Amino acid sequence: MNKYIAESFGTFWLVLGGCGSAVLAAGIPDVGIGYLGVALAFGLTVLTMAFAIGHISGCHLNPAVSIGLMLGGRFDKKELVPYIVAQLVGSIVAGGVLYLIASGNENFSLDGGFASNGYGEHSPNGYSMTAGFICEVVMTMMFLIIILGATDKRAPAGLAPIAIGLGLTLIHLISIPVTNTSVNPARSTGVAIFAGGWAVKQLWLFWVAPIIGAALGALVYRLMGSKKK
Amino acid sequence: MNKYIAESFGTFWLVLGGCGSAVLAAGIPDVGIGYLGVALAFGLTVLTMAFAIGHISGCHLNPAVSIGLMLGGRFDKKELVPYIVAQLVGSIVAGGVLYLIASGNENFSLDGGFASNGYGEHSPNGYSMTAGFICEVVMTMMFLIIILGATDKRAPAGLAPIAIGLGLTLIHLISIPVTNTSVNPARSTGVAIFAGGWAVKQLWLFWVAPIIGAALGALVYRLMGSKKK
Amino acid sequence: MNKYIAESFGTFWLVLGGCGSAVLAAGIPDVGIGYLGVALAFGLTVLTMAFAIGHISGCHLNPAVSIGLMLGGRFDKKELVPYIVAQLVGSIVAGGVLYLIASGNENFSLDGGFASNGYGEHSPNGYSMTAGFICEVVMTMMFLIIILGATDKRAPAGLAPIAIGLGLTLIHLISIPVTNTSVNPARSTGVAIFAGGWAVKQLWLFWVAPIIGAALGALVYRLMGSKKK
Amino acid sequence: MNKYIAESFGTFWLVLGGCGSAVLAAGIPDVGIGYLGVALAFGLTVLTMAFAIGHISGCHLNPAVSIGLMLGGRFDKKELVPYIVAQLVGSIVAGGVLYLIASGNENFSLDGGFASNGYGEHSPNGYSMTAGFICEVVMTMMFLIIILGATDKRAPAGLAPIAIGLGLTLIHLISIPVTNTSVNPARSTGVAIFAGGWAVKQLWLFWVAPIIGAALGALVYRLMGSKKK
Repeated sequence: MNKYIAESFGTFWLVLGGCGSAVLAAGIPDVGIGYLGVALAFGLTVLTMAFAIGHISGCHLNPAVSIGLMLGGRFDKKELVPYIVAQLVGSIVAGGVLYLIASGNENFSLDGGFASNGYGEHSPNGYSMTAGFICEVVMTMMFLIIILGATDKRAPAGLAPIAIGLGLTLIHLISIPVTNTSVNPARSTGVAIFAGGWAVKQLWLFWVAPIIGAALGALVYRLMGSKKK
Repeated sequence: MNKYIAESFGTFWLVLGGCGSAVLAAGIPDVGIGYLGVALAFGLTVLTMAFAIGHISGCHLNPAVSIGLMLGGRFDKKELVPYIVAQLVGSIVAGGVLYLIASGNENFSLDGGFASNGYGEHSPNGYSMTAGFICEVVMTMMFLIIILGATDKRAPAGLAPIAIGLGLTLIHLISIPVTNTSVNPARSTGVAIFAGGWAVKQLWLFWVAPIIGAALGALVYRLMGSKKK
Repeated sequence: MNKYIAESFGTFWLVLGGCGSAVLAAGIPDVGIGYLGVALAFGLTVLTMAFAIGHISGCHLNPAVSIGLMLGGRFDKKELVPYIVAQLVGSIVAGGVLYLIASGNENFSLDGGFASNGYGEHSPNGYSMTAGFICEVVMTMMFLIIILGATDKRAPAGLAPIAIGLGLTLIHLISIPVTNTSVNPARSTGVAIFAGGWAVKQLWLFWVAPIIGAALGALVYRLMGSKKK
Repeated sequence: MNKYIAESFGTFWLVLGGCGSAVLAAGIPDVGIGYLGVALAFGLTVLTMAFAIGHISGCHLNPAVSIGLMLGGRFDKKELVPYIVAQLVGSIVAGGVLYLIASGNENFSLDGGFASNGYGEHSPNGYSMTAGFICEVVMTMMFLIIILGATDKRAPAGLAPIAIGLGLTLIHLISIPVTNTSVNPARSTGVAIFAGGWAVKQLWLFWVAPIIGAALGALVYRLMGSKKK
């Protein structure tokens, strides 16, 4: 059970920290943290949890990562469904806790999107569905290459949390304007079910594209000669 | 005595660096560091001190952390009171030194809050007491999970200062707008006694909520199977 | 073949991540990531890839780096041409993928420069060709000293990706206003061929200056007593 | 000779990178890097050089650090004068190279201060001489505690460059508005001699205060039980 509890708390932290920084702190005039701060926050949720629970569950915190690791030969397929369930539980609880905190401000409204991912008219900066789809596929592909590479037995021991966490920061630095950055179906789901409406209607893309990207990443890293730790 | 001196200097640095960056550098037009810079500063006080004095005192710098580590089975309860006293001494001296520096600017006034923590009308962005309480509990809970996890004997050796320091940065990226972020009763006390008034009246929350959160964090990490280093 | 695939994917990531963050996210009003975010993105492409593929190809991602490492006695000259070819393939594919994503926004235009490097009237902040040339030479020289030093056998094992990646961030923090920062002929080429016009006409400088700088860096580090790992 | 060459190049990089980012990139409207970017740049010059040349010279790059390390029992007093000479040579050459690059912009003027340190009417945000003096003493004291602590034989091996570099970033996050942050007489000298006028007249403080601070830091760390590596 330890590893499922760890995956739930870890994904809780990813969604609360990443989406929380976006909802609570990004857009405040003059002193707000902007997309740069949100990018850092998402990455640091993974960096901190990878150090804190990596030795318990491997710290996937993301169904696309679990699938990519399975396809990359690093994760037992029997564990896939319980991991994804644990991740979704954590992400939805995080959405609820974030709602509790955010709604303590009288100007708060779910109409702001609650950090949901979107495309077309719901892309933060007006990118089409096709652009969003390509972007999510490529970003998740590279995320898996980073994860598989940094945890390869030939990579420096113990430093994978830094590579993977800051890799997620980098992905956000590039792609927040396109889709608000998912690369993680659990992260998208945890806030979309609170935002409702368009966020739920567009949720399919943030399951399909990251999973395709993760599968491609696993394939590419196998081409380069993956070695299990 | 070495460890009490270390805790005092470390907490001095946490308050001078974190609150100092907020008071001196956050709100300058155009080139100011904003909440992102303050978040980085708080985290780097802990990262730098954990490398510098971690081998002397463990580098708690925070009464809630000391209590959480005690409840998590990592810290001797006989040391709790002297650690908290040392932390408070360091934080109050830091408040004094910061006052000396800040008051060297003729536009300085304590009415700006002196980086005190607050809720309701004294929340930086207008969050209620309930939102602030929940936020401080959850943030401190996650902080303790990061600390206990990153110093678990199964975690990569030597890297805990990075995980814990950047964890505190992350916590600030999320929650500065809510309460100005405490998760640390010593940090709150060291500036509130200079600011006086509402800052002292609201100080109770920044002792109670972080301690509850730290206890919850210790409990959760035990559930995941904590291993002492 | 593994190492050529790795160099291609790595350089793909450097150009997509660095130039992508500049094109997609830098200039958005209020919440955009600015030059600071772009600097961080470029550095993190190298940090993440050095952890992910450093053990496969050495993670050069840059013809000037490959030449500097060859002159510094760390890289076999027989590998130079295939490495540069692989880097160029990756960078041009990245330019294409970035074009696909960016053009999914109806306000996108290649007239913005597509993150190309430039001097004189095409310098981001109006620096002359001479200033740009000196800047690129000195920045690449220091980049090679960092690379050769951090991978010296006397340096701490495993941490070179952090030094080198954040070294590239630092180089961008200094020099984006001067030339948009190249220090990497592949990065410059991958976007210039899409931007066309002035970007192609000025491309020569971003091959010549970085290569001179890399050679100087190799020379200086040999003067300090380089030791191969 | 290797170590003197290394100290010169390292201090060259500290001044070119730190002051260069301030002069070239800090104040550009909308996308400039601000004080946060400058703070990061200063810290990364030390982080990168500590990885690159730490094994050659110890990477002091700062007369106050050399003095503090000598007083802390970590540095041979016979080396003090040649180290300081090497640092000053590097810093002044850096000032010259920065002038060459910066003057390639027709709007450049030394009247902007050329990133010199100052107090009173030349403090970036209007802090008195007393405030500046206290600030420089305390910041340098803490810098030495970080350096001595992170290189103590009980600290995690190999990670001191991260602690020390990010420590310098933190110091800048706090104190740029007060004095433009020195904590390093060589850094102050390398640009003041180009700026001339008030910058030279106020230079004394940026030799005296950092050296006092460094001596205090060495004393405090001895009190905590310093152990030589």
